[in-house]
Amino acid sequence: MRPGMIDAAWLPPEAWRAVGSRRIRVTGSGLLVDTVAGELRRACERFGGEVVRGSGGPPCDLEMSLDGDAGLGAEGYELTGDDTRTVLRAARPHGLLYGMFHLLRSDDAPATGAFRPAVSRRMLDHWDNVDVHPVMGQVERGYAGGSLFWRAGEPRRDLARITAYARLLAACGINAVALNNVNVHATEARLLTDRLGEVAEPAEVFRRYGIRTHLAVSFAAPVLHGLSTADPLDRRVRDWWDGVTADVYAAIPDFGGYVVKADSEGQPGPFTYGRSHADGANLLADVLAPHGGVVHWRAFVYNHRQDWRDRSVDRARAAFDHFTPHDGTFRDNVVLQVKHGPIDFQPREPVSPLIAAMPATRVGAEFQITQEYTGQQRHVCYLAPMWSELLRGEQGPAIAEFAAEFVAVANVGDDPFWTGHPLAQANLYAFGRLAWDPGLEPAAVLDEWAGLTFPRGPRRLYDTLHAIMDGSWRAYEKYTAPLGVGFMVRPGDHYGPDVDGYEYTPWGTYHHADRDGAGVDRTVATGTGCAGLYPKPWSKIYESPDDCPDELALFFHHLPYGHVLQSGSTVIQHIYDTHFAGAREAAEMRERWAGVAGLVPAATHERVRELLDEQVRSAEEWRDQINSYFFRKSGVPDAEGRRIY
Amino acid sequence: MRPGMIDAAWLPPEAWRAVGSRRIRVTGSGLLVDTVAGELRRACERFGGEVVRGSGGPPCDLEMSLDGDAGLGAEGYELTGDDTRTVLRAARPHGLLYGMFHLLRSDDAPATGAFRPAVSRRMLDHWDNVDVHPVMGQVERGYAGGSLFWRAGEPRRDLARITAYARLLAACGINAVALNNVNVHATEARLLTDRLGEVAEPAEVFRRYGIRTHLAVSFAAPVLHGLSTADPLDRRVRDWWDGVTADVYAAIPDFGGYVVKADSEGQPGPFTYGRSHADGANLLADVLAPHGGVVHWRAFVYNHRQDWRDRSVDRARAAFDHFTPHDGTFRDNVVLQVKHGPIDFQPREPVSPLIAAMPATRVGAEFQITQEYTGQQRHVCYLAPMWSELLRGEQGPAIAEFAAEFVAVANVGDDPFWTGHPLAQANLYAFGRLAWDPGLEPAAVLDEWAGLTFPRGPRRLYDTLHAIMDGSWRAYEKYTAPLGVGFMVRPGDHYGPDVDGYEYTPWGTYHHADRDGAGVDRTVATGTGCAGLYPKPWSKIYESPDDCPDELALFFHHLPYGHVLQSGSTVIQHIYDTHFAGAREAAEMRERWAGVAGLVPAATHERVRELLDEQVRSAEEWRDQINSYFFRKSGVPDAEGRRIY
Repeated sequence: MRPGMIDAAWLPPEAWRAVGSRRIRVTGSGLLVDTVAGELRRACERFGGEVVRGSGGPPCDLEMSLDGDAGLGAEGYELTGDDTRTVLRAARPHGLLYGMFHLLRSDDAPATGAFRPAVSRRMLDHWDNVDVHPVMGQVERGYAGGSLFWRAGEPRRDLARITAYARLLAACGINAVALNNVNVHATEARLLTDRLGEVAEPAEVFRRYGIRTHLAVSFAAPVLHGLSTADPLDRRVRDWWDGVTADVYAAIPDFGGYVVKADSEGQPGPFTYGRSHADGANLLADVLAPHGGVVHWRAFVYNHRQDWRDRSVDRARAAFDHFTPHDGTFRDNVVLQVKHGPIDFQPREPVSPLIAAMPATRVGAEFQITQEYTGQQRHVCYLAPMWSELLRGEQGPAIAEFAAEFVAVANVGDDPFWTGHPLAQANLYAFGRLAWDPGLEPAAVLDEWAGLTFPRGPRRLYDTLHAIMDGSWRAYEKYTAPLGVGFMVRPGDHYGPDVDGYEYTPWGTYHHADRDGAGVDRTVATGTGCAGLYPKPWSKIYESPDDCPDELALFFHHLPYGHVLQSGSTVIQHIYDTHFAGAREAAEMRERWAGVAGLVPAATHERVRELLDEQVRSAEEWRDQINSYFFRKSGVPDAEGRRIY
Repeated sequence: MRPGMIDAAWLPPEAWRAVGSRRIRVTGSGLLVDTVAGELRRACERFGGEVVRGSGGPPCDLEMSLDGDAGLGAEGYELTGDDTRTVLRAARPHGLLYGMFHLLRSDDAPATGAFRPAVSRRMLDHWDNVDVHPVMGQVERGYAGGSLFWRAGEPRRDLARITAYARLLAACGINAVALNNVNVHATEARLLTDRLGEVAEPAEVFRRYGIRTHLAVSFAAPVLHGLSTADPLDRRVRDWWDGVTADVYAAIPDFGGYVVKADSEGQPGPFTYGRSHADGANLLADVLAPHGGVVHWRAFVYNHRQDWRDRSVDRARAAFDHFTPHDGTFRDNVVLQVKHGPIDFQPREPVSPLIAAMPATRVGAEFQITQEYTGQQRHVCYLAPMWSELLRGEQGPAIAEFAAEFVAVANVGDDPFWTGHPLAQANLYAFGRLAWDPGLEPAAVLDEWAGLTFPRGPRRLYDTLHAIMDGSWRAYEKYTAPLGVGFMVRPGDHYGPDVDGYEYTPWGTYHHADRDGAGVDRTVATGTGCAGLYPKPWSKIYESPDDCPDELALFFHHLPYGHVLQSGSTVIQHIYDTHFAGAREAAEMRERWAGVAGLVPAATHERVRELLDEQVRSAEEWRDQINSYFFRKSGVPDAEGRRIY
């Protein structure tokens, strides 16, 4: 890739060929319709088609209009037509935008039908800092270079790049972004006030692609701006938020709202003032409501100064125990934003019990596209299969049944490939698509992404991408922490293995391995009772080591190494087998990738090749550390006599 | 302590009372004699004595002159006299300086005799950075605030503070300092050239107290200053060093020389050019020789990218294997600076085998006063007993027999107490005193330090200090890594326990604990052969698990948990017993300290009290983690049934 070039991701010029060669009529008016018409006009200029604005005149190959049925909702659209002519109808401009991108990804066979998203908000949280944080850098848990929005304390103002980004997001269905890190430091707290222009400018770009901009704020913002208190029940505090919020909407009329991480890992919150999280969230909800804004209130509240000696405390229960008593007390425009699992974005966790336990609260399920615990964009790890399992409820309550919206932590940066690992683009794309339709098959989403990203490639290329990516999350799971136990990572950076790294820390992330067995007893009968927090039948399933899915065996149970899993293998032999298999699968990915040299752009191939070297090295490191650790503890030799150090 | 006040350490005004109330004659002239006369004059102004310069006139209570025997050497002195009159004679001005401080610490009973130091250079290495390093901060491994010399990229120029510091160092016998970190970063590399003034200014102060200033330099300094190479055999490189060194001596006529960490932990060195360490060290030695300077060449060379799976590689052998073939090839003004132990300043290590294996090389033994691995100046850990054992050879070759000089990493900073922990001042004092006379008893040195620091206190105070400090290193040893195995610390900051923290890393610092036993087999018979690198009888003693001192049992042997030590205890029961005992001793220190409230300055008492709280907490954390770790692995219950988590 030439210096300064940016990868086109899933919108290379070629992706527009079929649409851009047609005669297209776009009727309707307004900002989004102009965006649609502009995009199509550029495509037609390249590929020989034509865009006609307004009604009347002879029929076109592609007719786009706003006379769709009101039942399509704010974002839905309807496609009708045949091989020669397509009609795209929407009730609102958003529908035209999403319909246009639909046509791009299905240019071979024109789809017909009515389409609308499962949820009304599909959001990305950027964990970007304005200043370079001394530990976390420009982007917290970012593995794709610097921020798209700030560099070293100043706005980057690269509006062309933000435009390209907004287009990519719209093409996969994202309609909301929060620009800054939920850990709001001092400089970033001023984005709400005197640095608001740094938010308004990108918001202007995002707006043209149907995306509303949100802002992470500090609950202590009033104090950081000179008030003596941030007590949510104090009149002066409410007035302060009221005034500030009015200013925000004056600058950004379609502003989405606030994102708040309160009383969590050291962030300030209502507890400081003896108030509840409902008090805190409702204060912000009330000031946002007149403007049509919402508050995303994160449920990631737990004791991060736990005593590892005290096995009665269970971080997996913390959010449930904290928030369920408040169900029904939050305003309608509060979104309780709950991480998908009860701990923290591990490669394997059960669904958070909180998600299914707040029937009278608007719940947003939070996912993590940035691969903090899943290989940090140095490993291929296609996450859609994990999200799909969680959304559809294959091993627990179906998130899609309970969540009213979906939020994910973004994985992008100023890297030329956007996401560091070129194949990690697929995770961003897939999140958008699954948020639109949680019922999509991960492999079908990969087809879409691969077809757009590497258009008109030979079948062999797509087959190889499937062979590498479809099972990559399970491969990663195999060579890392076993059987759902989680958190055997290096403290701090969370990359690479360190089995005891968190075992004797205050973070509540333990495995309890000893010479006889491993795992955390979270049963009702003898453990922390976490299993009992789930609705039936899951509470019963998780409670029993014989029924609990193998993948979650050590999450819910402390099991002897000789315990026979449902697979028929013992715990210890399962550990050995999966670790040898996972590392081997990483090596196979590398071999497979070598076979598609020449079928993808050279720079893309080279970047992935380099990263696969690191993945293979790291997978072997995981294999050997995990196997050595458990062999040294258990003393049980590998049944197949393979090398354990 | 009032803001801005600096603790007087072991030179409070009261320490000068006896001397300052006498009538004193100082004969001789020159900078150091002026310093001595000036110090005494200030004391006499306070306590009613008088200083007379020059010979002639009636006899004084205290006569100081330079007519001592030449056999006293450059720094020695002779004391004669009786209860009413003292005569201090030296051959050179340094002797008067050290004699004066001798009188301060023995003001009750005038000592008589001739005194001269065991070695001619007694040096402190400061690991101070000019810029704040993003990870290591202003002072690498510093636990006493910022640097005395630089702050945030600029010289502090606090000459009053440096004067006070130089006086403290002279009072315990230090006569050389290196100002900056051996890890020389880009900014610090310019101290040698355009920032030389920042070295010359403190050097001027140190000179007045008989202390020569040295500088840590980067072996790549020529390249950092624009040359294309730093190859030690390249003529241009030699010329460059020649010119730069002449400039240094023009600015600092008594400049001591260069300190170099080459080819070590990522620092550049002669290996880059295919040259040997003798080539590298001799280049610098040759350019320094005409000016009377020396090069301290650190022997801390090992593979820090080792594969933990490969048990044939042993970091404890690395410096020996690397340097012994070069014995006899170093210039006379090269000091091979060898850490006291073969690994890295652990609370318990055998002597480095290299120290006794370089008969034709000038060896400097390096100690670490800054408590990187011994409690980071949050724990009381009086190190003189450890150094004394090593110097006198209680469990291995006696360092004092082999080393021609002693160097130590300083523990000071801009903290009001100089050393963070007020009682850590004793370590700085004791290093100076033991470097002067390695035969001193640690408890006697503590008496000196306590008497000077807390003059005229009640017996109960000194008894308490002994009760807390004499055994504090052994207490620390008890509650941390057992039986000499070392390095069970948190990676990175090295504070607090993490048993497996370094076990699967590239650093070469392993314990090899499994369910059956622990320790590193370094025997000749079945291990890495490190035991065989020692002179007899130590090679034989270390080789045998029955003869090897218990304290080093797991350093040299991998032993089953049931192995019976010379103490009669098993390995596992020893672990439990020492950890319960060590934590209890920390708690006793805290109780004892409570009993001397009112007997030391309130600010000192308060600071130590706070730190003892942390020490007790940390010791319990160590106790519980170490005990849990080994109980989980071994499955052997504590014979006394105490609580293990």
